Amino acid sequence: MSSYADRLAALRDQLKRDRLDGFVVPLTDEHMSEYVGAYAQRLAWLTGFQGSAGTAVVLPQEAAIFTDGRYTLQVREQVDGRHWAYVGVPETSVSGWLGAHAPAGGRIGYDPWLHTRDWVREATRALAAKGATLVAVDTNPVDAVWPDRPLPSDATLVVQDDARAGRSHADKRAEIGDWLTAQGADAVVLSALDSIAWALNVRGRDVDHTPVALAYAIVQADGTADLYVAPEKLTDAVRQHLGNAIRLHDRAAFAGDLAAYRGKRVAADPERAVAAIFDRLEAGGATVLALRDPVVLAKATKNPVEIAGHRAASARDGAALARFLRWVEAEAPKGGLTELDCVAKLRAFREETGVLLDTSFDTISATGAHGASPHYRVDEASNARLELGQLYLVDSGGQYLDGTTDVTRVLPIGAPTPEMRDRFTRVLKGHIGLATAIFPPGTNGGQLDGFARRPLWEAGLDFAHGTGHGVGAYLAVHEGPQRIAKPNYPGGGPSEPLRAGMIISNEPGYYKAGEYGIRIENLVLVVERDVPGGDQPMLAFETLTFCPIERSLIVPELLTVAEQAWLDAYHARVLEVLGPQLSGDDLAWLEAKCAPL
Amino acid sequence: MSSYADRLAALRDQLKRDRLDGFVVPLTDEHMSEYVGAYAQRLAWLTGFQGSAGTAVVLPQEAAIFTDGRYTLQVREQVDGRHWAYVGVPETSVSGWLGAHAPAGGRIGYDPWLHTRDWVREATRALAAKGATLVAVDTNPVDAVWPDRPLPSDATLVVQDDARAGRSHADKRAEIGDWLTAQGADAVVLSALDSIAWALNVRGRDVDHTPVALAYAIVQADGTADLYVAPEKLTDAVRQHLGNAIRLHDRAAFAGDLAAYRGKRVAADPERAVAAIFDRLEAGGATVLALRDPVVLAKATKNPVEIAGHRAASARDGAALARFLRWVEAEAPKGGLTELDCVAKLRAFREETGVLLDTSFDTISATGAHGASPHYRVDEASNARLELGQLYLVDSGGQYLDGTTDVTRVLPIGAPTPEMRDRFTRVLKGHIGLATAIFPPGTNGGQLDGFARRPLWEAGLDFAHGTGHGVGAYLAVHEGPQRIAKPNYPGGGPSEPLRAGMIISNEPGYYKAGEYGIRIENLVLVVERDVPGGDQPMLAFETLTFCPIERSLIVPELLTVAEQAWLDAYHARVLEVLGPQLSGDDLAWLEAKCAPL
Repeated sequence: MSSYADRLAALRDQLKRDRLDGFVVPLTDEHMSEYVGAYAQRLAWLTGFQGSAGTAVVLPQEAAIFTDGRYTLQVREQVDGRHWAYVGVPETSVSGWLGAHAPAGGRIGYDPWLHTRDWVREATRALAAKGATLVAVDTNPVDAVWPDRPLPSDATLVVQDDARAGRSHADKRAEIGDWLTAQGADAVVLSALDSIAWALNVRGRDVDHTPVALAYAIVQADGTADLYVAPEKLTDAVRQHLGNAIRLHDRAAFAGDLAAYRGKRVAADPERAVAAIFDRLEAGGATVLALRDPVVLAKATKNPVEIAGHRAASARDGAALARFLRWVEAEAPKGGLTELDCVAKLRAFREETGVLLDTSFDTISATGAHGASPHYRVDEASNARLELGQLYLVDSGGQYLDGTTDVTRVLPIGAPTPEMRDRFTRVLKGHIGLATAIFPPGTNGGQLDGFARRPLWEAGLDFAHGTGHGVGAYLAVHEGPQRIAKPNYPGGGPSEPLRAGMIISNEPGYYKAGEYGIRIENLVLVVERDVPGGDQPMLAFETLTFCPIERSLIVPELLTVAEQAWLDAYHARVLEVLGPQLSGDDLAWLEAKCAPL
Repeated sequence: MSSYADRLAALRDQLKRDRLDGFVVPLTDEHMSEYVGAYAQRLAWLTGFQGSAGTAVVLPQEAAIFTDGRYTLQVREQVDGRHWAYVGVPETSVSGWLGAHAPAGGRIGYDPWLHTRDWVREATRALAAKGATLVAVDTNPVDAVWPDRPLPSDATLVVQDDARAGRSHADKRAEIGDWLTAQGADAVVLSALDSIAWALNVRGRDVDHTPVALAYAIVQADGTADLYVAPEKLTDAVRQHLGNAIRLHDRAAFAGDLAAYRGKRVAADPERAVAAIFDRLEAGGATVLALRDPVVLAKATKNPVEIAGHRAASARDGAALARFLRWVEAEAPKGGLTELDCVAKLRAFREETGVLLDTSFDTISATGAHGASPHYRVDEASNARLELGQLYLVDSGGQYLDGTTDVTRVLPIGAPTPEMRDRFTRVLKGHIGLATAIFPPGTNGGQLDGFARRPLWEAGLDFAHGTGHGVGAYLAVHEGPQRIAKPNYPGGGPSEPLRAGMIISNEPGYYKAGEYGIRIENLVLVVERDVPGGDQPMLAFETLTFCPIERSLIVPELLTVAEQAWLDAYHARVLEVLGPQLSGDDLAWLEAKCAPL
């Protein structure tokens, strides 16, 4: 295996051969995915960076890696500072840095299949000030110097049958066709992998933790569709499921086929489709309508079958998590238990359900100071023992055919300090404040975010992450468009009105650097709520996640009567939902944990 | 006096002479003022509409008047439906309507001194789809057919001395000069009348209720300024106050002088400067920088002298209002008291302070169903008697040399119904929820708005106006940039971070159409708040307005312990602040109203 220094040198040589003065290496794929397959891990191959978000820029004399606040420490551990400058985003943007550092008159390359059109425009403008130009490459120069680059996954697609999806793909395609007609458009390009999976009721195994398959789809105004996917990924069962109204093409034919839309009006989503898709359509003579992918909102507002599926998955998952928490509580004080032991044991409990397909993300198993990094990922190097006096935080979820879960709980190892209990109780108050919110239709997550933070704000505290993200139905554990967060959150999610049927996380936290982390996360469902005597129909949240919230961390005097009533009612429901799945000591433990406060 | 039909016909004749196929008549002045002088009341002259916001469009065969939801009923009463179509904004925009209704190939006129550049661009685009064009006029055709149009006010300016302003205008100009240097600009055009008044420590009497003078100012990077104002408005005292660093010009010279900035970089605020200012600067060869008026934020964040002044004004004003409320409580049940009687009596109490300069807006004196219109203005035609069983709502304020006040209280005439008490208590809970908020720097009003609405939302209720607006220091009672409101509020105010020193109203309400209105309004000051044991400095609100909140309308059982404690502490402070100003029966009344709940 070559050194990272060798790899950087090889890329620079390749750039010279390509007559480029620089190149931009983002961490994404042709579908703007958050999690990508091994074949698209160019940033990690080039730099050694293992985080989930970042960008590298290579120039002849310097190179920089751009990461956000989550990875400030990690990037310095994993990426060699002798070859790479560390740059923090969003304080400095990649475009802004390029404008300042690119050589005057230089040619900076980018792969148009890995960037949005908006990014291309912004970077082009920034470089223009230096007389430099942004140049689209035909083949990615990183791939040219990456000898053992993995091939894209050849895993086969699987059918998500109507009984789980709640609607046939014919029904979904017809709705997209109606939307196209209403927009005066002939076709829409779907490039987001979860949109394709949802629209066609298929799933895949090409990306860790997210059951999607590498593909493109173009849905026509008549409701038929063209699916671009590697032929070896299609089984007879999938071909039969897709039927005659979906024409099958090799994924490799997609780029070329975009030129066939001359004179047509084709919709593409500027946030989800890469620049190359817009470029090819326009070069081919199509009129491109920049519109949000019509699947996004349909997918986010779950149908009754998806909701019922989530309830079943959540009940099953909660029982596994409860068994795990009892096990940690019993084993950790004996000493020797590590964060990785916990990851393995929690997976084992989930696997004992017999229907676990995957975890929904890498489990965050964090003891003591590790918990203070909200996105901590344990590995062999960081793996720590759970010690008395620490808080242990576990944020995890499962992928089941009927639903995707995501839940965070915290346990004290031994006796917690008064400060830990105060902070935990404030986080709980914020969690309850959001869980019990009632709000008029049209309200967005940005308007509700303060309900989750207020008890912390009152103590001069806050937490530096969003409060809630959407969750898919046996799909991505992070799903748009809705989000509960401060208004400046990237991507606009806090401005998206919440709608009945949306599933979203409720996860306020508190983090004390070097000491501990706290987060209480349940998933909630947006439901219609008619308040007797009210003037107008309202919306509210129904909590979907069931697992005890650790009582020894709660200061009862800090809770209002209403908050205590919520907690007792929640625990009564936890016992109802999980109790029948547990027995013996597990059940006795659950009963004790769920007793009224 | 000609009929409105005659006026419309006269305008259409004038448009023919001007070779125009239409004209747009907004309700504003050359300074984009919210309240305008009589000379600029073109919309009222043409249509009869007396509301504070609206636009008319006149085409050869049709004419339309555009108003928002506040004026849906009023516009139908005041404007003749045989000649005018009623159009609701923002559902339909003026531009959108023009695009649909303008004759193909037509020339639609607009006065470039009465519209923003953004509006001009939007309307130009909308008309282009019809092959129609938007045409700037040199003289307003309404003025040509308005024979008895008032002249602009010739009232003299008055000095706001440093002892009240807290800073000299030399100091303020130097700060603006530093800002210009930092922006790489040579000069900034100030066209907002309150910005000019604040920057130069002058006030005027040209607009009802807002102590501003018709003028323009251009501040140079060296801190000197050019003031454009009618010479007859300048007294010796004002000339002396302005000094040598401010060059005086006739207001009529302003437009021509904009051509003198050839080669200069000149800042102008696209939200506050009209299109004509941008046009003239660009035509004259200047580079225009579209930047927010630098006075806006400086003016919004009050200095210690302004804050002390506001406290004094507020204490004085509260005592006058308390005397008025006692009088209403005593007199109304006897029968015969009208809304206009109340307006006169409240003004009399304020005048008894000896220092009232004006009310800060037309007093909203609304009994029964009138209260359900949040912006109700009483006149001879609408004037109603206060009847037993009604709620009486009074929203009013005073202009004093040391501060501008704005306060709303509600009294029951006789016994309130249980529903009225329930709703009042929920509004009070929302008011307290906002008053007691603590939040980190960077938080905006959109994030806090939900705190004021939550107790209503929980009952399936809401209110259809913003929760808080900025207030000037002996200036405009509505002042930007901050606002507490739902995020879609026009103008972006809810996105503006709150900063220490800002004064903003806290005024949740509840309105039951045809029955009653409730609003509880105090002004609050944004202050720094260090919470002991907290991680970071926070911001909070300090209530500035003191007047009893009617206890007979409160259902104590609906208040939490903390809410009741807030109310008792508030009333104790009301007694402290107002008590020394009252005596005899007034004082006894106040003591009873301020007793712990």
